[in-house]
Amino acid sequence: MRAALPAIDAARLWRRTLALAEIGALPAGGVNRQALSDADIAAWRQMLQWGAEAGLEPACDLAGNLFLTLPGRDRTAAPVLAGSHLDSQPTGGKFDGAAGVMAALEAAATLAASPLPRARDLTVVAWMNEEGSRFAPGMMGSEAFAGVRSLAAIRAVRDAAGCSVADALDRLLATFPALPRRPLGPPAAAFLELHIEQGPLLEAAATQIGVVTGIQGKYTYEVEITGAEGHAGTLDMAERRDALAAFTRMAAQLYAQVGGADAIVKFTIGRLLVAPNAPSVVPARVTFRIDLRHPDAATLARLGARCEAICTEQAAQQAAPCAVAVTRLVDAPPNDFDVGLRTRIAAAAAGRGLSSMPILSAAGHDARHLATMCPTAMIFIPCRDGVSHAEHEYTSPEQLAAGTQVLSDVLAPLLATTSLEDPAP
Amino acid sequence: MRAALPAIDAARLWRRTLALAEIGALPAGGVNRQALSDADIAAWRQMLQWGAEAGLEPACDLAGNLFLTLPGRDRTAAPVLAGSHLDSQPTGGKFDGAAGVMAALEAAATLAASPLPRARDLTVVAWMNEEGSRFAPGMMGSEAFAGVRSLAAIRAVRDAAGCSVADALDRLLATFPALPRRPLGPPAAAFLELHIEQGPLLEAAATQIGVVTGIQGKYTYEVEITGAEGHAGTLDMAERRDALAAFTRMAAQLYAQVGGADAIVKFTIGRLLVAPNAPSVVPARVTFRIDLRHPDAATLARLGARCEAICTEQAAQQAAPCAVAVTRLVDAPPNDFDVGLRTRIAAAAAGRGLSSMPILSAAGHDARHLATMCPTAMIFIPCRDGVSHAEHEYTSPEQLAAGTQVLSDVLAPLLATTSLEDPAP
Repeated sequence: MRAALPAIDAARLWRRTLALAEIGALPAGGVNRQALSDADIAAWRQMLQWGAEAGLEPACDLAGNLFLTLPGRDRTAAPVLAGSHLDSQPTGGKFDGAAGVMAALEAAATLAASPLPRARDLTVVAWMNEEGSRFAPGMMGSEAFAGVRSLAAIRAVRDAAGCSVADALDRLLATFPALPRRPLGPPAAAFLELHIEQGPLLEAAATQIGVVTGIQGKYTYEVEITGAEGHAGTLDMAERRDALAAFTRMAAQLYAQVGGADAIVKFTIGRLLVAPNAPSVVPARVTFRIDLRHPDAATLARLGARCEAICTEQAAQQAAPCAVAVTRLVDAPPNDFDVGLRTRIAAAAAGRGLSSMPILSAAGHDARHLATMCPTAMIFIPCRDGVSHAEHEYTSPEQLAAGTQVLSDVLAPLLATTSLEDPAP
Repeated sequence: MRAALPAIDAARLWRRTLALAEIGALPAGGVNRQALSDADIAAWRQMLQWGAEAGLEPACDLAGNLFLTLPGRDRTAAPVLAGSHLDSQPTGGKFDGAAGVMAALEAAATLAASPLPRARDLTVVAWMNEEGSRFAPGMMGSEAFAGVRSLAAIRAVRDAAGCSVADALDRLLATFPALPRRPLGPPAAAFLELHIEQGPLLEAAATQIGVVTGIQGKYTYEVEITGAEGHAGTLDMAERRDALAAFTRMAAQLYAQVGGADAIVKFTIGRLLVAPNAPSVVPARVTFRIDLRHPDAATLARLGARCEAICTEQAAQQAAPCAVAVTRLVDAPPNDFDVGLRTRIAAAAAGRGLSSMPILSAAGHDARHLATMCPTAMIFIPCRDGVSHAEHEYTSPEQLAAGTQVLSDVLAPLLATTSLEDPAP
């Protein structure tokens, strides 16, 4: 047996998680906490209070990331980071994002109160705007931190009401004038993120801990089809440049060839707008988004190219063809998480008598971007019926506590030394 | 040669048509004259003034139809009606509707000043709210007149701002307290409506007069597909109840089987809404409208039934099928205009050395409803590039004068007797 690792306070963790869910609470039990909103600011206030109770040092950066640091002996050594995000989908649940932040806070509070030596800092982090519901696309905080996207580009993004990230971010920062500012993207020794699975696999396998192997790759395309408006009662079918008819041809091929490519691919057309969208007018323009995901980089690239080819081919296949423009908005290659950290997570689970299994993340997470700068891994916990991005999203107090205990147990030895090479249990 | 028919005043007709277009004029040359609006009231004032100049008797009914009557010898005989509508699309042109009212007014003024005997009344009419842009659906005045829709049902309709037809109509009528009220739907001996074609056929055939054979039938369906929301990154393709994928299957079959049924059918999906319409969410619901038109009643009914069958079949064709609800919102059967009146129009055109051709109306008109109560016909005149419902809609002074002359020449002998059986020229 090794030196005893401290037990987290499962009751405190659950109480705080429910308290956080009161901020932006929705009638049906869910949460609407948009990035940089009043609710987001209220969540910061709550986090700062809990951080102070645990003796954590608060800070933020100019990208709107919130940090709560448990100091270690060597303040110059790269810290270990753990956390997730506080923002939610418009009709989101209590756990997507919040669970990871609360787990990291609980682990920090647990380790702060323990006699275990800490050679370096542990920093709890809440990344700004992971969801991208208000300001799209999301993962802004982690992208700015990792240098994947410039802060200037992020600040220029506007929400549907025309409000810029710049204005919303400056308002957030002005609300906390005394909060110390950190430079963007300091060195990080490692990053760990706990998250609900957002899928049914752990529940189906009755397994408590998912050791995330990586995140599947994702392409997002915006496709704009331009035809010509016409009177639904008078314009001959053969003369129509009907953008919705062109969409139908494209989509039929896309669902068949790309959506049916193999058993793993995920192909979604989730957003589609028709103009002028009047019942008696032949549609002049259709704009839609393709969300394509696959864990294999080569397959993803091949299917992405197929999407582009299908859109171009099908737009032309009409007596009076439509114009088409295909733009790739997101190109997120698949990534593999750090093998050393994955081994530590599996071992920590075993050390607590918890079942674990390797699992691929189908959804994107901030950890994707951290993985470009430091050893990174994720811990998944089950969620009921695999449901997420919905008000009835749920994970149990026991499941959340199990994942948080594993997180704490992985963090403890990482903090004990300033080298990641130190052997795990 | 028969007794000389009087010539209309083409210059007066054009001058008045342009003057009317000043009421509700838009910057790019078009007109926005919504039913029962201030502009509509101003147009009534102008019409009443021109009617008084020609010695016409003004009146209105409680459905907001405006009448200007040229008295005949027998005031108890059913009058001949001629006219169209004064309201326009939000970014409409100068001629859709207005041309028919101005032509009828010009014919009445011409006949009033002529020595030709008049056995019965000629009534110029402007039907209330043909377009249905403000209060939907349109054709309210002619439907109330013909007893197709009850005045109570019409008065209950509200515009986007929440204003009811009842309030707007009462306001219009209160503006003209001295205007005599006529009961709804008195007997009518015949109805004639001049209208721009709103299509390219007359222009393409370099023909001055379209003898409208009838109006094609129209079905409007609303289709609602209900599947289930899901995460675009995690939900297996085989388990999805994707409403947009179901729409794609339906639409592909609808365009092929219904849109490609013959060379005459018009099939349009003009309006489509996706929910929640988020890029990373499998669509849970798609709602769309089918606009189906055909001149043959049996074919229309057969294709309509095919639409319903395709929607039902395709919704079920999925591992996890979607639910579908198909509702027919509009069922307007095709109608044939009176053969006797059509013969008179063609003969009148020939009598003036004007070219004419039979033509089917692809769009709906008030004449559709008058045809249910009396012999009815329409005269089409060309419009440039077939454009209508747009600010640059245009017909030339010569084209408008030609159609108006034909209208006047058809009306004259109809007024000379109280029997429609009297031979035309």
